[in-house]
Amino acid sequence: MSINEDHKKFMTEAIILSQESVSRGGGPFGTVIVKDGKVVGRGVNRVTKSNDPTAHGEIVAIREACANLNSFRLDDCVLYTSCEPCPMCLGAIYWSRVKEVFFANTREDAASIGFDDALIYDEISAPLHDRKIEFRQIMREEAIPVFHSWTKKEDKIPY
Amino acid sequence: MSINEDHKKFMTEAIILSQESVSRGGGPFGTVIVKDGKVVGRGVNRVTKSNDPTAHGEIVAIREACANLNSFRLDDCVLYTSCEPCPMCLGAIYWSRVKEVFFANTREDAASIGFDDALIYDEISAPLHDRKIEFRQIMREEAIPVFHSWTKKEDKIPY
Repeated sequence: MSINEDHKKFMTEAIILSQESVSRGGGPFGTVIVKDGKVVGRGVNRVTKSNDPTAHGEIVAIREACANLNSFRLDDCVLYTSCEPCPMCLGAIYWSRVKEVFFANTREDAASIGFDDALIYDEISAPLHDRKIEFRQIMREEAIPVFHSWTKKEDKIPY
Repeated sequence: MSINEDHKKFMTEAIILSQESVSRGGGPFGTVIVKDGKVVGRGVNRVTKSNDPTAHGEIVAIREACANLNSFRLDDCVLYTSCEPCPMCLGAIYWSRVKEVFFANTREDAASIGFDDALIYDEISAPLHDRKIEFRQIMREEAIPVFHSWTKKEDKIPY
């Protein structure tokens, strides 16, 4: 099987997951994560079914893959998702260190069916005081010693 | 108690959580979520302890608050976090619909102790082909019918 056919096979599985999710009343999004040619994590959107706004397909799949691999890193893993990741999931993808991402539907497709990531993309690069949700900084003086205690801690696990 | 003192009280709790987290070997981050003057969710960074790269304090607190309130939305909630949220958590904050965010340490403080969100902030606004993790689009033709089936579904729960 060529590399291209592998990619098609795993994306097909992500798309099938997204369709099954719709059939079961969930959001139309599915994700699979693959390592060494094997699926190590799967996820569908469970926001409304789990009362969890963070339960996008990508986040669910990343959590499952990490649990299966006993690791908080997904080096050498490839993520296949039926739609371009939103900023939350993009952040999770970077923190997880997957090496490559394939997606099918685009953020514009998602916006056209009512999932509008564009606001969040705009807000991320907006200055704090121009955001639709107000972000206010307070009490840095009280909080910064905790960061210093982290720096000094010798047995910490960096990540 | 004035509004200002309320904000200080809840931020102090978030900072104490961040310090306790360091003491227990976790990352130096804590979050509390408040509704109607009561804490409805708490979170500390559990990335390394739970093998979950998505388990930032904010995400953990949002999931707990939603579970406690039986809702996938946190309207009228205020989030207090000991450090400026990373892009993943910022996305989660928007999806959760909290109304206001207070933070103490800044993203620059986080970068100075090795938690560098700056890369992710840059990558989010970068074109797909310029990103450090490659994002490739394939098979939209196969995936788009699932979005259409979502649009047609009459008993769906929009969010």
